[in-house]
Amino acid sequence: MASDGFRPLDEKLLVEYVKATPVLADKLGNQFDKLEIEEVGDGNLNFVYIVISPSGSCVIKQALPYIRCIGESWPMAKERAYFEAITLKEHGGLCPDHVPEVYHFDNSMCLIEHISDYMAKTLFYTSLLYLTTTDHKSAVAKYCGNVEMCRLTEQVVFSDPYKVSEHNHWTSPYLDSDAEAVREDNLLKLEIAELKSKFCERAQALIHGDLHTGSVMVTGDSTQVIDPEFGFYGPMGFDIGAFVGNLILAYFAQDGHAVDGNDRKPYKVWILKTITETWNLFYKKFTALWDEHKDGPGEAYLPAIYNNPDVQLLVKQKYMKELFHDTLGFGAAKMIRRIVGVAHVADFESIKEAKKRAVCERKALNFAKNLLKERRDFQSISEVVSAMEQLDSQ
Amino acid sequence: MASDGFRPLDEKLLVEYVKATPVLADKLGNQFDKLEIEEVGDGNLNFVYIVISPSGSCVIKQALPYIRCIGESWPMAKERAYFEAITLKEHGGLCPDHVPEVYHFDNSMCLIEHISDYMAKTLFYTSLLYLTTTDHKSAVAKYCGNVEMCRLTEQVVFSDPYKVSEHNHWTSPYLDSDAEAVREDNLLKLEIAELKSKFCERAQALIHGDLHTGSVMVTGDSTQVIDPEFGFYGPMGFDIGAFVGNLILAYFAQDGHAVDGNDRKPYKVWILKTITETWNLFYKKFTALWDEHKDGPGEAYLPAIYNNPDVQLLVKQKYMKELFHDTLGFGAAKMIRRIVGVAHVADFESIKEAKKRAVCERKALNFAKNLLKERRDFQSISEVVSAMEQLDSQ
Repeated sequence: MASDGFRPLDEKLLVEYVKATPVLADKLGNQFDKLEIEEVGDGNLNFVYIVISPSGSCVIKQALPYIRCIGESWPMAKERAYFEAITLKEHGGLCPDHVPEVYHFDNSMCLIEHISDYMAKTLFYTSLLYLTTTDHKSAVAKYCGNVEMCRLTEQVVFSDPYKVSEHNHWTSPYLDSDAEAVREDNLLKLEIAELKSKFCERAQALIHGDLHTGSVMVTGDSTQVIDPEFGFYGPMGFDIGAFVGNLILAYFAQDGHAVDGNDRKPYKVWILKTITETWNLFYKKFTALWDEHKDGPGEAYLPAIYNNPDVQLLVKQKYMKELFHDTLGFGAAKMIRRIVGVAHVADFESIKEAKKRAVCERKALNFAKNLLKERRDFQSISEVVSAMEQLDSQ
Repeated sequence: MASDGFRPLDEKLLVEYVKATPVLADKLGNQFDKLEIEEVGDGNLNFVYIVISPSGSCVIKQALPYIRCIGESWPMAKERAYFEAITLKEHGGLCPDHVPEVYHFDNSMCLIEHISDYMAKTLFYTSLLYLTTTDHKSAVAKYCGNVEMCRLTEQVVFSDPYKVSEHNHWTSPYLDSDAEAVREDNLLKLEIAELKSKFCERAQALIHGDLHTGSVMVTGDSTQVIDPEFGFYGPMGFDIGAFVGNLILAYFAQDGHAVDGNDRKPYKVWILKTITETWNLFYKKFTALWDEHKDGPGEAYLPAIYNNPDVQLLVKQKYMKELFHDTLGFGAAKMIRRIVGVAHVADFESIKEAKKRAVCERKALNFAKNLLKERRDFQSISEVVSAMEQLDSQ
């Protein structure tokens, strides 16, 4: 993933590197004459190459010591690759069915099943619902070392969108006043501060830290979650919210892609269904793990105390309600930053006509602002979906 | 504080140890013939000796590798002395006026001023209101090593009182049904679980971890806070609550000490005043530090975002409201454990007549249970004091 004397890998260096690395050379059958090499990263942070030889293939990802889309003026620890690797290893041990080696393309229910499985297992098994406080504190200490990646999130998710920053951009001039309104909304700032505190202070589970839909690689029968270089002990809702927030963005982007003969309505219905089922399946799987391990090593709720069905139901409802509201809050925060912050999403960016794009983005932004402020009023994911449809029809 | 080859210090060993330790021998003027030695620990965890020679004095505290009041069957890391030392050092650097060397006795306003000063400074300067997230994460990692002391608190404060445990005791038979009611109160268990999660997961500040009134040594002009061997990054309310909770216990204990000619009423009024002023002064000092350092290194509320008086007021009110409710919750939890858990307080234990003691303890227990469940309904400390008076008069 990285050489010792650091050099950004171009195609020439990449071939040298592969030749000099036995395990990679073996993967490619030691055939280097007809290599196909494609750079496939989104360009924000890293270089990602797919390398194909006649007898095999591999993916090479390189962490740069700065943020690629900004340049060397914004340095960034390339040691994040280490945290990516150990988080993959840790999550892979917990959820071996969904750990990378090969990446392809998708169908729907598999994705929903798999991603809810991934979130339920990785979050449950690294929380105090399963860990002793001894193991938990030791793991928390270990991941404190990934502070630089946490700080990047703090800046681009919880800070920059709410202040003037050279990194921010939006569909100008259409959203100029919308961006300004975000910077002047005291109640919104109150809510984002609460989420930032939770992100910085609450070591609830080993989270992926960047679980947007672009971190999920899917085929018809396999779902692989990659890129946990932001991994650390933080609030569970940050992962679930990242995924759900990206789906909500996708929903509001569809009208910008509608053309004669394809109004995108069936796809919008599919996205709503995916949002609903992702949360509901996660809920079901997570609480099933809880039931399965209620007499296990976890020390949050000792069996000798939480010893009757009534109290078990009460604590579960309370825990899941807070997690649901965290999910909505963090999801909304991630939506806002994708519209007025530094890094945007393809769903919107690919709408060529700026005016049309701005209309879609404004709907998503208004929905996110409301969700962040009023998240505690939502009792179920179907209420969230209804609110999306209502705002969309206005 | 401890020798390498560990031996519990009796008086004979203590003299040898002092003679062999130049800095201590110097403190005592190297006069060892007429040493006065008194063991002054409460007997729960450690040995604490006051050693006096004609020309000087010192305090010797020894951490045992087990819990003293239980015995070797409950091992406990004697390395807690290390965490006690570094927390004293850290807190001493932040609040140099109130760091140990000499300990004596008290008058009232000094105590209230000093303890609120101590809490405001130690909690503010170790929180994200003053620290960068880089410094904060690094400190959090360091104190994760004190997990064994955290686990002791988890057990005796958040677990044992709510289940059958060989370590629990109470004024039997009078409080048998009260203790049983605590073990069968589902709503109480729901609340204590929330506080336990906060204790285990929320790294809000470097807390003392055992700030009951016995950790505060006072004279007319000096207040010294000792014994931070439970120090780690946890919720601020745990410290403030421990102190306030002990004062509430003292209030409800007074009727058990009333005799003809001394009904203890003026002292009860003084305790209520102390509770009110401790919180209010803490609030004033803590928010004053916040104002003073609002453009400082702290990253919880960046000046570029929280850039107008309205939003500054909003975030401060919200932060302090949550801290107030945490304080009441943790205070109530500490009260409950002092009545039906393993370690009790002198205020009640010194009421010789069991039946009379039980009446006082029951009032305190009922108040604590209500406070834990209804803490979010209290808007100010004066409402808490009114509720105490009301329950007391029933």
